[in-house]
Amino acid sequence: MKALVFHGPGKKSWEEVASPALLADTDAIVRVEATTICGTDLHILKGDVPTLVEGRILGHEAVGTVTLVGSAVKNIETGDRVLVSCVSACGHCRYCREGSYGQCLGGGGWILGNTIDGTQAEFVRVPFADNSTYLVPDGFTDEETLMLADILPTGFEVGVLNGQVKPGDVVVVVGAGPIGLSAISAAQLYTPSLIIAVDLADSRLESAKKFGADLTINNSSQDALATVLEATGGRGADVAIEAVGIPATFELAADLVCPGGHIANVGVHGAPAALHLERLWDKNVTITTGLVDTSSTPTLLKLLASRRLRSDNFVTHHFTFDQFLEAYDTSMRAGETGAIKVAISRPPA
Amino acid sequence: MKALVFHGPGKKSWEEVASPALLADTDAIVRVEATTICGTDLHILKGDVPTLVEGRILGHEAVGTVTLVGSAVKNIETGDRVLVSCVSACGHCRYCREGSYGQCLGGGGWILGNTIDGTQAEFVRVPFADNSTYLVPDGFTDEETLMLADILPTGFEVGVLNGQVKPGDVVVVVGAGPIGLSAISAAQLYTPSLIIAVDLADSRLESAKKFGADLTINNSSQDALATVLEATGGRGADVAIEAVGIPATFELAADLVCPGGHIANVGVHGAPAALHLERLWDKNVTITTGLVDTSSTPTLLKLLASRRLRSDNFVTHHFTFDQFLEAYDTSMRAGETGAIKVAISRPPA
Amino acid sequence: MKALVFHGPGKKSWEEVASPALLADTDAIVRVEATTICGTDLHILKGDVPTLVEGRILGHEAVGTVTLVGSAVKNIETGDRVLVSCVSACGHCRYCREGSYGQCLGGGGWILGNTIDGTQAEFVRVPFADNSTYLVPDGFTDEETLMLADILPTGFEVGVLNGQVKPGDVVVVVGAGPIGLSAISAAQLYTPSLIIAVDLADSRLESAKKFGADLTINNSSQDALATVLEATGGRGADVAIEAVGIPATFELAADLVCPGGHIANVGVHGAPAALHLERLWDKNVTITTGLVDTSSTPTLLKLLASRRLRSDNFVTHHFTFDQFLEAYDTSMRAGETGAIKVAISRPPA
Amino acid sequence: MKALVFHGPGKKSWEEVASPALLADTDAIVRVEATTICGTDLHILKGDVPTLVEGRILGHEAVGTVTLVGSAVKNIETGDRVLVSCVSACGHCRYCREGSYGQCLGGGGWILGNTIDGTQAEFVRVPFADNSTYLVPDGFTDEETLMLADILPTGFEVGVLNGQVKPGDVVVVVGAGPIGLSAISAAQLYTPSLIIAVDLADSRLESAKKFGADLTINNSSQDALATVLEATGGRGADVAIEAVGIPATFELAADLVCPGGHIANVGVHGAPAALHLERLWDKNVTITTGLVDTSSTPTLLKLLASRRLRSDNFVTHHFTFDQFLEAYDTSMRAGETGAIKVAISRPPA
Repeated sequence: MKALVFHGPGKKSWEEVASPALLADTDAIVRVEATTICGTDLHILKGDVPTLVEGRILGHEAVGTVTLVGSAVKNIETGDRVLVSCVSACGHCRYCREGSYGQCLGGGGWILGNTIDGTQAEFVRVPFADNSTYLVPDGFTDEETLMLADILPTGFEVGVLNGQVKPGDVVVVVGAGPIGLSAISAAQLYTPSLIIAVDLADSRLESAKKFGADLTINNSSQDALATVLEATGGRGADVAIEAVGIPATFELAADLVCPGGHIANVGVHGAPAALHLERLWDKNVTITTGLVDTSSTPTLLKLLASRRLRSDNFVTHHFTFDQFLEAYDTSMRAGETGAIKVAISRPPA
Repeated sequence: MKALVFHGPGKKSWEEVASPALLADTDAIVRVEATTICGTDLHILKGDVPTLVEGRILGHEAVGTVTLVGSAVKNIETGDRVLVSCVSACGHCRYCREGSYGQCLGGGGWILGNTIDGTQAEFVRVPFADNSTYLVPDGFTDEETLMLADILPTGFEVGVLNGQVKPGDVVVVVGAGPIGLSAISAAQLYTPSLIIAVDLADSRLESAKKFGADLTINNSSQDALATVLEATGGRGADVAIEAVGIPATFELAADLVCPGGHIANVGVHGAPAALHLERLWDKNVTITTGLVDTSSTPTLLKLLASRRLRSDNFVTHHFTFDQFLEAYDTSMRAGETGAIKVAISRPPA
Repeated sequence: MKALVFHGPGKKSWEEVASPALLADTDAIVRVEATTICGTDLHILKGDVPTLVEGRILGHEAVGTVTLVGSAVKNIETGDRVLVSCVSACGHCRYCREGSYGQCLGGGGWILGNTIDGTQAEFVRVPFADNSTYLVPDGFTDEETLMLADILPTGFEVGVLNGQVKPGDVVVVVGAGPIGLSAISAAQLYTPSLIIAVDLADSRLESAKKFGADLTINNSSQDALATVLEATGGRGADVAIEAVGIPATFELAADLVCPGGHIANVGVHGAPAALHLERLWDKNVTITTGLVDTSSTPTLLKLLASRRLRSDNFVTHHFTFDQFLEAYDTSMRAGETGAIKVAISRPPA
Repeated sequence: MKALVFHGPGKKSWEEVASPALLADTDAIVRVEATTICGTDLHILKGDVPTLVEGRILGHEAVGTVTLVGSAVKNIETGDRVLVSCVSACGHCRYCREGSYGQCLGGGGWILGNTIDGTQAEFVRVPFADNSTYLVPDGFTDEETLMLADILPTGFEVGVLNGQVKPGDVVVVVGAGPIGLSAISAAQLYTPSLIIAVDLADSRLESAKKFGADLTINNSSQDALATVLEATGGRGADVAIEAVGIPATFELAADLVCPGGHIANVGVHGAPAALHLERLWDKNVTITTGLVDTSSTPTLLKLLASRRLRSDNFVTHHFTFDQFLEAYDTSMRAGETGAIKVAISRPPA
């Protein structure tokens, strides 16, 4: 089969590799119909993720068709159309027992396209298939469903649930890239009274409006703190969701919340941030971090199936497997291309 | 009457001042029987608390007798023996309605010995008396009850409740001064399986053992992280409570928790700490800060009255009002004197 | 002034009475601009509420203008346009400190139009004004705001919050009268995947659809249990909200939930229901009861002001004070008149 | 091997049967070292549990040694000393993903000694071994550990956690049999201020005192409601735990709680109870039911290992496998024999 293989920082190719086989009786093999590129994949290509060895197939999101299941797999069978989640869960360790699949100690967690071969391939081996794949509801396209592999559960769990968004809240999302947009989408499940998006690029802020932001702040030209205070009668936001991953945006998020507020970090960080405890020690704030668990996937699938949650607005560019390098190029140059998410699909037979 | 008056950094005296009078119909006047000195009072004397003006009477903890109540006060009456809480609560603002009295927007919060005259005096005016005083249960000494004015609710609310201590947890308390000891006491209400105290002074660690720590670590000579990992099978603590207030101890607390763990900051900080998001972003940690609300005071009083919570082990030194400067001196030299809390009482008639 | 006075079961009149005066320094006097009639008022007229004495002015919902405040009132002043909540809160008792205003032990709770004179009058005395009135946001009519005095907080707190409605849930509301419709409205704040309304009257079910029900069941002709099971793949509803107040509807609600589900009773009951513990003991169900606390009123006002919550669809009939008896007649014959809520307003000057 | 076989209502024998074999690769075979008899086993013998067919080996609690594991079992291996939990968990269904193992839809739940052969045998097949067995901590006897198979998690989860016991609460436990005593033990993990036990038998109330009850009420001679009200200043209990399983005790539990209180049903019921909604509708009570999930077993094991929880006080009578019928007789005549729990152990080789 063909797959997108990592060959060290800056190097990748769509090349012929061996097809995957079952390694454990809890594995499944899935024929990939559609996959996508995550911001993390771009970090990998920069060499930022040390667990990635050369020769690894990238990718941790897919929709596809089950072609083989191990003897211990009960929930899915050959021929099923499934969502392949970015997180695999052994189901038995102390973290899996609490639904914290991202912290799995039994061999799961984020392993696809990281410590084992991933989904940017014609076929993928999915470990712990019973807890790592989900039947696709009827009537949904591959691309719509694909957004539930990583980006929507991340925005929902790490942004909205960790941030404890409640009806009537003021929610500010710092960063209007794909993850920020996902947080904006997911926040609306709890009916905040005001959603504010902050970014440096007007084009991203335009997207934020389309995804549901009520107010946008371009903090290259506007004072984000002053604007948030003005919009909240001087109080600050109830919840600030950090969706970038650099010290400045985390520190901004921490500045924007009111006493008693929540700061939910979603961004992937490479350096420490300053935590201004000299201002925050008596402000009753709660700061959370987290890797997505995908424990919310069944909930998100129900919301998708009942048309309460949209996921058809993320994919801006469509490719087929043979255009994989072009898809990467489009993602890498998102500032120019306006890409939010790209989809790469198996070409029609 | 006489009172302990702040005269600018490093200056204080026990001197004659005007007695307090009712200023609002929700005020009460309390004849102080016993008061104490808080670490915050020592910070004030160093000039660290800019809200303090010269001429202010210090102190925010007291037990005493009600001598006068305003016309709108319903819960207490003249002659009642009451605990005066360190936090006053208007009872009507958005924070008070949620029990976050420390964040009161209606004129309360930590005001005694801060923005208005305090309890280190023969008499004190207590605003919002209905939400700021509590009847003392029968059979308890002034000194035992006094520990519920600030230190025990602080350890319980900001340390234990914010840290979400649960039965079976491993709890590490960084700092074994009065607040750390209070957190150790209060943690036992939730039956953790292991309580670890970390401090630089062996004498404080000895106190920690007496208050209920199972394991102590002197991090001037021992590797706190290695010891905690060893004691927890490599996982780290479920909850780390910071009870010092400097960057190093906050950062240590953040290092000691397991994935999914809670870091509850109790210390009063004067400088930013480094938040190692490059390590923590995917670890599902929760960090909380907080000023005590004293919303738990009724619960703590029930626990005191039923002898489920001890408070008679904090006061190491006993003084009378005429020895106020000596009491301060003993508190300031706690390293030498071994003082945990001092009590200063009205001398017998 | 004129007021609607209760003269014992079945008897009422719109008659001249003495205007109210301040009785406590925490009282306010409000000039009523609009009021409404609650199902409870109809119960009172049947003689079902023993706390009601003859001569009592009825009503516990109003929007109006403050004409006088006691000396201890801080949040409102003369001339303010305010919502008068159905529940008064002393703000100091153990229940008020926890936000359970409906259980107030300090003289509050549901007292208006019950143990003291109510809002169906030209003027009303509102005790504990700081915790019992709310400023009306600009741009909202009296009638829209009036729905936040009782019916919307009741549906939200006692139905939706007690029932712990979550995104993706299946919610069934038994009874599509005013309270059931309010629960249907409020449930949407948490984005359930399916809202089912059950009632005996097609006209009410039509209203339920307009308020947001996805599926309606007329259980005079349809098997509610079979229909709910079919709609949920055999599981049952996650949350069942009882909004009628008779044994049969409570028992139906209990039958409709899945294992792990929530049954939130909102109805006012006059007789015991059978609790089928022989079926429920091992099903992990949670049953809640409750009187509205109106602790959610600030949240609902924010949602109203941000146009996230509609309240302009409840009032079907509009009257002026001189038509009060006609308004009662319309409410009592709701089956014929199709009344959901009636509004009775001060006639234009 | 030999096993205790059910032969229809009233009939059982300790007889030779075929040894169990692995049926699925997630199974384990455990050599039973000690087992016990549950109240449910006595119900089964009365014919009250229709899922039980003749020929079934009874029992759902054991401590033993692993003799064989299926190929998919990862957490335990041959030779391990393990606790066999009363509930088996597939780990993959919607309920298992939420930790609600008792409601497992994937073939687990309470199946041992119910729908498959149980633990009152020399060997037992344990399905879903990874989620249904636990390594025994060093230094604990079989009998101490055995109490964590069913009775302690039941009292903790269904009584204490469902009842939301908090520090300072007044907890009343209705029924001081084995489950009531387990609830009394477990409640102390949350440090209530007062534990009250209610029973008809003085001997059981004596046990309740030994397990930690502060106050006991024999409701054959004392007015339980009046006594609880007196002990709580007229308020009622914060939490009432029903641990009997008949309508009268459930109704008593519901009478004993204060407004805002929790009624946690633990008893196994065979008939409906009256729910006095005419009194409870406005009292903000929460009623819960539940089958044990054993999701708390790791927590309880940590508490046992750290000597924070006692489990050595339940077993009053000790038997060996050849005395199985005598052990049943002692359990059935608990009123005379004073049996709380009996242990039946493999005789020394």
